[in-house]
Amino acid sequence: MARNIIVIGSGAAGMTAASAAKRTDPGANVTVFTEDEHIAYSPCVIPWVLEGKLKWKDIVMHDAPFYSKERGMTIHTRTKVTGVDRIAKKVTASGVTYDYDSLVIATGGIVFRPPINGIDKDNVFVVRTINDGKKIESAMKTSKRVVIAGAGIIGLEMALSMRRSGKDVTVVEMFNQIIPRIADKDMADRVQEHLETLGVHFALNSPVRSIEGRGKVEWITAGEKRYDCDMVILATGVRANLEIPMMLGLDIGELGAVAASDTMRPYRNGKIVEDVFVAGDVVQCRSAVAPGPTMSQLGSSAVKQGLVAGKNAAGGNATTGAVTSPWVSVIGDVHVAGTGLSENLASLYGIRTVSGTAKGFTRARYYPGGKEMIVKIIANAGTHVLVGAQMIAGEDATGRIDWLTEAIANGTKAEDFLSRAENAYCPPTSMVRDVVITAAEELCHNLKKVIQ
Amino acid sequence: MARNIIVIGSGAAGMTAASAAKRTDPGANVTVFTEDEHIAYSPCVIPWVLEGKLKWKDIVMHDAPFYSKERGMTIHTRTKVTGVDRIAKKVTASGVTYDYDSLVIATGGIVFRPPINGIDKDNVFVVRTINDGKKIESAMKTSKRVVIAGAGIIGLEMALSMRRSGKDVTVVEMFNQIIPRIADKDMADRVQEHLETLGVHFALNSPVRSIEGRGKVEWITAGEKRYDCDMVILATGVRANLEIPMMLGLDIGELGAVAASDTMRPYRNGKIVEDVFVAGDVVQCRSAVAPGPTMSQLGSSAVKQGLVAGKNAAGGNATTGAVTSPWVSVIGDVHVAGTGLSENLASLYGIRTVSGTAKGFTRARYYPGGKEMIVKIIANAGTHVLVGAQMIAGEDATGRIDWLTEAIANGTKAEDFLSRAENAYCPPTSMVRDVVITAAEELCHNLKKVIQ
Repeated sequence: MARNIIVIGSGAAGMTAASAAKRTDPGANVTVFTEDEHIAYSPCVIPWVLEGKLKWKDIVMHDAPFYSKERGMTIHTRTKVTGVDRIAKKVTASGVTYDYDSLVIATGGIVFRPPINGIDKDNVFVVRTINDGKKIESAMKTSKRVVIAGAGIIGLEMALSMRRSGKDVTVVEMFNQIIPRIADKDMADRVQEHLETLGVHFALNSPVRSIEGRGKVEWITAGEKRYDCDMVILATGVRANLEIPMMLGLDIGELGAVAASDTMRPYRNGKIVEDVFVAGDVVQCRSAVAPGPTMSQLGSSAVKQGLVAGKNAAGGNATTGAVTSPWVSVIGDVHVAGTGLSENLASLYGIRTVSGTAKGFTRARYYPGGKEMIVKIIANAGTHVLVGAQMIAGEDATGRIDWLTEAIANGTKAEDFLSRAENAYCPPTSMVRDVVITAAEELCHNLKKVIQ
Repeated sequence: MARNIIVIGSGAAGMTAASAAKRTDPGANVTVFTEDEHIAYSPCVIPWVLEGKLKWKDIVMHDAPFYSKERGMTIHTRTKVTGVDRIAKKVTASGVTYDYDSLVIATGGIVFRPPINGIDKDNVFVVRTINDGKKIESAMKTSKRVVIAGAGIIGLEMALSMRRSGKDVTVVEMFNQIIPRIADKDMADRVQEHLETLGVHFALNSPVRSIEGRGKVEWITAGEKRYDCDMVILATGVRANLEIPMMLGLDIGELGAVAASDTMRPYRNGKIVEDVFVAGDVVQCRSAVAPGPTMSQLGSSAVKQGLVAGKNAAGGNATTGAVTSPWVSVIGDVHVAGTGLSENLASLYGIRTVSGTAKGFTRARYYPGGKEMIVKIIANAGTHVLVGAQMIAGEDATGRIDWLTEAIANGTKAEDFLSRAENAYCPPTSMVRDVVITAAEELCHNLKKVIQ
């Protein structure tokens, strides 16, 4: 009998899992259920579509007929799964029940909607799906002033997208800095300054208190002030979508997401569930740097977890390790990137840190077109083990943050990293001594001053 | 009494050592002797100056008065050291003797001149110093046809520089592929094809036999053929400049360079020499990947070794580890990079290898401006430990090759690299699953097929 594999969710995790399952067991029946109309697209790129750099059709990799015809799967779009029976191993959708041998839950996240007055008014948007994006695109036509609630990466990307579309943009943020969870204030303030030169306004220490207007939003109050606007975009973070996991009684971890093992199997009453797999934003997993679990909430993590979930759902034995969660964003003219813990986040975990920061250039000092590069590397003050890094550069941050990620994920001490570090050099692509290495040297210098 | 530190050589290794020594012991007398007229410049960038992208003055970081005034050193340019007395600890130059407490030898390399007829004819050049470059610049005015002898990185960069300056360029190479030592034929052939589309001609399997002409070169013979030309540029590799090491009776290693310890001290009759330090192209050091020693011959290595030599010459206790020697070059529209052993070189060491190659893009598939990226990763077929990698990409190879270098230098197994690997992702700077990780997956797949 052919193996029945059901995947719920059609984002990066779900579609990767479905394709991996089919590759691992080509004879399996792979069926995907999704509430979305579109599948296999990159939600990360919505800000660039809204500013006109790309079209909606560009960002959809494949449609449902492609998966059916080319990959031999069945895709049910605009279809909500209304029931899952763990004992009978059945999924119900649109009144029909489907048997499964393996079930992959990749239902992703839902944007957190702060419990404030007026949150349901017209022209208050989230950015998650293509349909969310199209609603914003439509409202942009009659909007001049836009408030973005939340100065995380998605908030900043949306702020710049709106600004480039000619809007008057204000980002309101409850913390005293932008990108507060993943970056430190010293680095974040530089990014904020850059965005300000591009015309984006910021209100820090300003939690949203209410959304006001007759039917449609007319202003918000944040902190002590009023901000008139025609549109609000909520970039207030994503929570795991727990509807299906709750139906199955899966264990929910302390971060409010499904606790997953290294084979991407969830737990129920503390015991592994053999025939269910989870992947993507619905999951919390082992952190390589924090004492507790973490949620990556990154497209790259969703793909990695989806691969493991899909292979195992088809009888494989893949595993994924602890995560460091590197990220990068192009914000205006700068590439902003980070990996592991910020000093902010480390202090919340009770980890004392020391950092080293170096400034330099992306090319040899004299080579035309070089851009500024600032690198900060963070280590545990007691053990000297690397725990995180952040980078702002005019170009080429991505590979360098992956470099640091490899060292951090491997539990490398700062001194060992420095002693081992070598950089490829040519004048058009780096300094003879890369800024990453200079930052590591500064870190080792600062670690020597720590009283143990 | 102030410590007397003498540095012989003013390239990347020498000037880095001099500056590091002065930083470590600000009270020391630091004196640099160099035969060169210019100091502290980047010879790597000469090809770009010759094609007019930069001026000679751009590539000199600082001149001798700067080092004297700002850094408190004494620099003797155009000065040959004619004697060194190891017992009395004295250096002789221009008939004057100078005492030293610590001596740093950073005399670099000399271009290998193959023992062939006609090598001393006019218009036969090497590319090592600014003065070499200026001679080529001058000869370019009356030259139409240029032969480059040697298809290593410097040969290719010079070939393109000459081509862009409107010359008819042929590269002759004795091996059956370009960049034969550091790249494999599958990757090298792609680079060759790219250079051919830019108008550079190649003659492989064609060792130079003779250089002919009346006074000035008129043609060369390479392999069985004659190549008419007005200029020859020898890019035939660099050998350690052993004149000073020989005066001191230092041990010369099997690669024909000074064997150095991890503190950059040389040996004499198998015993460490405490008050002498070596750095840069004059050195052979521990390889992180090969069973024997290696010569990096890279600007980045020279700086790293110079730092250690300079600190230790001033009483420090710095060390450098085994080297992996990552390299990168921008050749036309592609970034070509590598690290560790090629399969070619590994086979010369008797190491059986398996590789994995993946093709993809430097940005998300749909994002404008993305370029092709090809990554090859190589592991030891028996131990599965990573030993090398090569990359060709339209952009952003540098950080990614440094990422692989960290894993290789740390003796990581292919499977551990893949399990741990995470990549920072945003549509303008990478695929959601970076090509490096896809190549690692292919490598692990291929390793499974190996009969142990």
